[in-house]
Amino acid sequence: MVPSVLSVCGRVFPKVLSHGHFSLTASVSRRAVSQVPVGFVGLGNMGGNMANNLLTKGHRLVVYDVYPEAMEAMASQGAITAQSPAEVADQCDCIITMLPSSPHVREVYSGKKGILSTVKTGSLLVDSSTIDPSVSQEMSKLAEAKGALFIDAPVSGGVNAAKAGTLTFMVGGKESEVSAVQELLLCMGKNVIHCGGTGCGEAAKICNNMMLAISMIGTSETMILGQKLGLDPKVLNEILNVSSGKTWPSEVYCPVPGVMPNVPSSNDYEGGFGAALMTKDLGLAQNAATHTGSPTPLGSLAHQIYRLLLNHGLGQKDFSVIYKLMEGKVAK
Amino acid sequence: MVPSVLSVCGRVFPKVLSHGHFSLTASVSRRAVSQVPVGFVGLGNMGGNMANNLLTKGHRLVVYDVYPEAMEAMASQGAITAQSPAEVADQCDCIITMLPSSPHVREVYSGKKGILSTVKTGSLLVDSSTIDPSVSQEMSKLAEAKGALFIDAPVSGGVNAAKAGTLTFMVGGKESEVSAVQELLLCMGKNVIHCGGTGCGEAAKICNNMMLAISMIGTSETMILGQKLGLDPKVLNEILNVSSGKTWPSEVYCPVPGVMPNVPSSNDYEGGFGAALMTKDLGLAQNAATHTGSPTPLGSLAHQIYRLLLNHGLGQKDFSVIYKLMEGKVAK
Amino acid sequence: MVPSVLSVCGRVFPKVLSHGHFSLTASVSRRAVSQVPVGFVGLGNMGGNMANNLLTKGHRLVVYDVYPEAMEAMASQGAITAQSPAEVADQCDCIITMLPSSPHVREVYSGKKGILSTVKTGSLLVDSSTIDPSVSQEMSKLAEAKGALFIDAPVSGGVNAAKAGTLTFMVGGKESEVSAVQELLLCMGKNVIHCGGTGCGEAAKICNNMMLAISMIGTSETMILGQKLGLDPKVLNEILNVSSGKTWPSEVYCPVPGVMPNVPSSNDYEGGFGAALMTKDLGLAQNAATHTGSPTPLGSLAHQIYRLLLNHGLGQKDFSVIYKLMEGKVAK
Amino acid sequence: MVPSVLSVCGRVFPKVLSHGHFSLTASVSRRAVSQVPVGFVGLGNMGGNMANNLLTKGHRLVVYDVYPEAMEAMASQGAITAQSPAEVADQCDCIITMLPSSPHVREVYSGKKGILSTVKTGSLLVDSSTIDPSVSQEMSKLAEAKGALFIDAPVSGGVNAAKAGTLTFMVGGKESEVSAVQELLLCMGKNVIHCGGTGCGEAAKICNNMMLAISMIGTSETMILGQKLGLDPKVLNEILNVSSGKTWPSEVYCPVPGVMPNVPSSNDYEGGFGAALMTKDLGLAQNAATHTGSPTPLGSLAHQIYRLLLNHGLGQKDFSVIYKLMEGKVAK
Repeated sequence: MVPSVLSVCGRVFPKVLSHGHFSLTASVSRRAVSQVPVGFVGLGNMGGNMANNLLTKGHRLVVYDVYPEAMEAMASQGAITAQSPAEVADQCDCIITMLPSSPHVREVYSGKKGILSTVKTGSLLVDSSTIDPSVSQEMSKLAEAKGALFIDAPVSGGVNAAKAGTLTFMVGGKESEVSAVQELLLCMGKNVIHCGGTGCGEAAKICNNMMLAISMIGTSETMILGQKLGLDPKVLNEILNVSSGKTWPSEVYCPVPGVMPNVPSSNDYEGGFGAALMTKDLGLAQNAATHTGSPTPLGSLAHQIYRLLLNHGLGQKDFSVIYKLMEGKVAK
Repeated sequence: MVPSVLSVCGRVFPKVLSHGHFSLTASVSRRAVSQVPVGFVGLGNMGGNMANNLLTKGHRLVVYDVYPEAMEAMASQGAITAQSPAEVADQCDCIITMLPSSPHVREVYSGKKGILSTVKTGSLLVDSSTIDPSVSQEMSKLAEAKGALFIDAPVSGGVNAAKAGTLTFMVGGKESEVSAVQELLLCMGKNVIHCGGTGCGEAAKICNNMMLAISMIGTSETMILGQKLGLDPKVLNEILNVSSGKTWPSEVYCPVPGVMPNVPSSNDYEGGFGAALMTKDLGLAQNAATHTGSPTPLGSLAHQIYRLLLNHGLGQKDFSVIYKLMEGKVAK
Repeated sequence: MVPSVLSVCGRVFPKVLSHGHFSLTASVSRRAVSQVPVGFVGLGNMGGNMANNLLTKGHRLVVYDVYPEAMEAMASQGAITAQSPAEVADQCDCIITMLPSSPHVREVYSGKKGILSTVKTGSLLVDSSTIDPSVSQEMSKLAEAKGALFIDAPVSGGVNAAKAGTLTFMVGGKESEVSAVQELLLCMGKNVIHCGGTGCGEAAKICNNMMLAISMIGTSETMILGQKLGLDPKVLNEILNVSSGKTWPSEVYCPVPGVMPNVPSSNDYEGGFGAALMTKDLGLAQNAATHTGSPTPLGSLAHQIYRLLLNHGLGQKDFSVIYKLMEGKVAK
Repeated sequence: MVPSVLSVCGRVFPKVLSHGHFSLTASVSRRAVSQVPVGFVGLGNMGGNMANNLLTKGHRLVVYDVYPEAMEAMASQGAITAQSPAEVADQCDCIITMLPSSPHVREVYSGKKGILSTVKTGSLLVDSSTIDPSVSQEMSKLAEAKGALFIDAPVSGGVNAAKAGTLTFMVGGKESEVSAVQELLLCMGKNVIHCGGTGCGEAAKICNNMMLAISMIGTSETMILGQKLGLDPKVLNEILNVSSGKTWPSEVYCPVPGVMPNVPSSNDYEGGFGAALMTKDLGLAQNAATHTGSPTPLGSLAHQIYRLLLNHGLGQKDFSVIYKLMEGKVAK
């Protein structure tokens, strides 16, 4: 009944969804990229680890970050440092950016000393930030006007996957462009999913995360209700998993402490995907829903419930901590 | 990543979750039950098909329904008809009931001519109605006072599964009692899940269906938002299925017409699980949530959204038709 | 623009809405009632104070409560005590009941030693409990079968108003019956509103309280958002009150501490209308909404938010404490 | 119980809230302003009527709009037309803008031929558009850098009030600046409410409208539930108005057809405040809530419900038409 991941993907995106072991057609060969430096802007928790993997896999890097220490750390591993995004664009024709939010992306690309002020014709610009899809489209147009290509490629997987090089990239752009950066992305991750035109990578990510938040809160409510009705939480979780109430959280990420061994809920909600980050993504989803006139009552309520969680000071815990808020057992 | 049903169940309920091909310990042997008639009260769309399967598998039946035509139909297949639930209980020591709602269950069991007025000591009473778990517990106590055993065993699977004998029973009661009725239930279904003590079968069913309604609305919202952002619905659905946004609807029951071939959404929302029935189950969930003091914000909102759908006259369509309400394309 | 209370009421219910100073047509004169004892069942925080006011105004009382101490307290003030509701009905032909919930009402009226077991033809039974309107209608039918009249007359105003004799009664029943009990009710309150047939008093109360909960949460959200946007809470509250955002809370019961002097929010949310009671009324509203197929998305979400508040241990605080939950400043 | 508007305001903002008949201290005398032309950018349904009132009251105007016909209409009444906002700013030192949304405001102020490209030191810029408060603050800073003053002054009252000159202005800015434009604003409206610093006018408006949408939906739900429970809608509405369930809609704008004579609901929901405009304001509120981290569960759900209404094609009806959506009686 449940198809395996590979066959599902194979059927629907035969050319565009690539896994490391069978990607064949990267237009930029590994040897070639290792000669020309790749640019990297944004060396935070995610970007720093991603850049490290590129270095490890033999790429030369020119890096920039607003925090000098972040650049020094990379320099000590062999990266060349630049004084601005413009300087990065001056030295590289393939640049990856990993930034916290839409205004940062706008600044790094179209600001005074931004990438687009010096970008070369034919450059490939890959933004892995999670931002508003309409900002990606805006940057794409500005890049096009300079003869460069802009691709949105947000990731899923968090800091641990960034470190291990096992991220999933959700990519928006023309198929040929996506092929061109595929091998590079596979140095930092293990899956590349082509989601559609520019902005579709961002769109897919915020849609997925909105659904995930709904599932997580729904599963939490269901587990609380079931327990109050006398059900054992392990039994209820298994029943959901063999029934139509199955969700990703019930399968691999149960929010009730003690039901599954190696998940954040069984480790005082440490590790995992921070509630504050989920709240940010839900805000992007709501923003997109407002702009496109899409009714999302559950997505919107999920956003507000996470907002409430943040007000209770739990933004740094894993997002499954919403279970504790529902229970009323929020330690202060 | 997705464990098979058997291994999951095997790990958690080694003794209690039984599938036809390995149930070993039914206390009532098939030969034995075929000699003693089984009682059946409630011969509607579900009950009628379930009773039919018992007849087909060689059981003798004594039946009752408020509609004489329903009884005549069963009589023409060899069932004995009774004039009241009391008369059924007079002739049988194992009785199955399948009724529309809590008041019907109360009437059939504890009404003037109800089962409990004539029930014999040691009788086994199995209620497959979907009702309030607290009513199951109330009936159980009344039965116990008469020396009989009451088990709640609501089903999932709908009319087609009732016809095909492939229902799943979610059973609440003592393990020994559940074993006693297992073989009988497997004449009408293919899975028997022991959920816990009395009322836990009902509890599991309404928990599961509350989560399912949340997933269905959430998936609908997500698919609408994604399309408005430029994503192809088939591509988005596949992305969800290889990501953390996976739900049962995204896997096997996508609400967007044309994404999956053999689901109600691709057949003008005909067939499947009626929205009115889902709304009823959500009402039971909310009732249980209120009585137990469980906060269920998404479950509660899901209930209201289905309530709105019913007001638009779509109660007889499959519950995935909620997608059309969200789209604003509700034909009148 | 804002009509005065009296003119509004005068226009719509010229005969049925009575205020103490102009009620003219009570069918039971004060002298008469003082000779025949009035029955009173349920002597809790509300009922005890109401009964006290009847004594003070010259009525003789026969009382019953499950707690002997509650009866002794009344006896010390001159009331006659009974051993059961049946005994009360044996001695009185006008009985008032004030009980915590639907099951208590069912027990006191139709239980073994209930009022209806001994009630005299022509008796007038007035239930001031806040319960499910359908239970009122059920009791009314049972009373009618015994030749007695049942009226639902829940109150608004809380313990302080019960003490001061300033309650408002929302009454359901025939107009002639309501007239018959009007003078008696005005011994305990200052307003009697005739809402319609049996159950309409309860219906009006739960509708009103559902709207109140929505207004209270909405006003809290609005005040939080406004402050985060830089508005002074006093100024924003006044703006709402001269604009279309005016609500009863913004006018007389602002949930933000310090905006209004003599309200619970300015007294650490002590006094007032307990959050647990509001949650109970919201549960009744949701129950009624489910039974009647009424979509109430905001009412339903309000219920869940209060449910969450109770889980955080704030059920005994005034219901305006919801503001603190939203702020995330729930002291533990 | 309901204080008059004047006494409420008088108590709280003695100096800043001015009504026509007692404003004393306008810094720009009427004679003076009539000599110097006032600039007006944005001559749509609202702006056109507002500009007309300025002309009628003796002001000379220099106007601009992207639609030449809109300018010609004003020219025929004696206004001078300009070719761009920059040209307006070149000829006037007091300019009013009335534009549809934040991007328009950005363009008109800080675009290439925008007001700020030619604005004179000491100019007074008054924006009556309903936009994101943070955009007002952004414009204010840009204006300040040019030595000009920017005030946000969104209005309530709709097209009819714009025509009649009875708008209410909610103003954000320094008190001295507000005083300076007060007389001018009172040519177009009857109330000027000083809400706080820059952006506070916008903040107050979106807070008020969020609360209004919540009240409107809440009142609709309450009226539907009450009717299904047997209450007469007129009686229930009056009960709310003498109880704690009173809201602005229940007092003056009941959404149930036939309850009040001269409101949109009694005129097939024509006239009044369009649902599409309410939805836009709710979007601004949600945007502001997201940016400031304010939980607004009911406001957010209200937004989604209006979003759903728009999908059903009812955006041009009065916003009280939400009652019909709830009833399921949305004509197609």
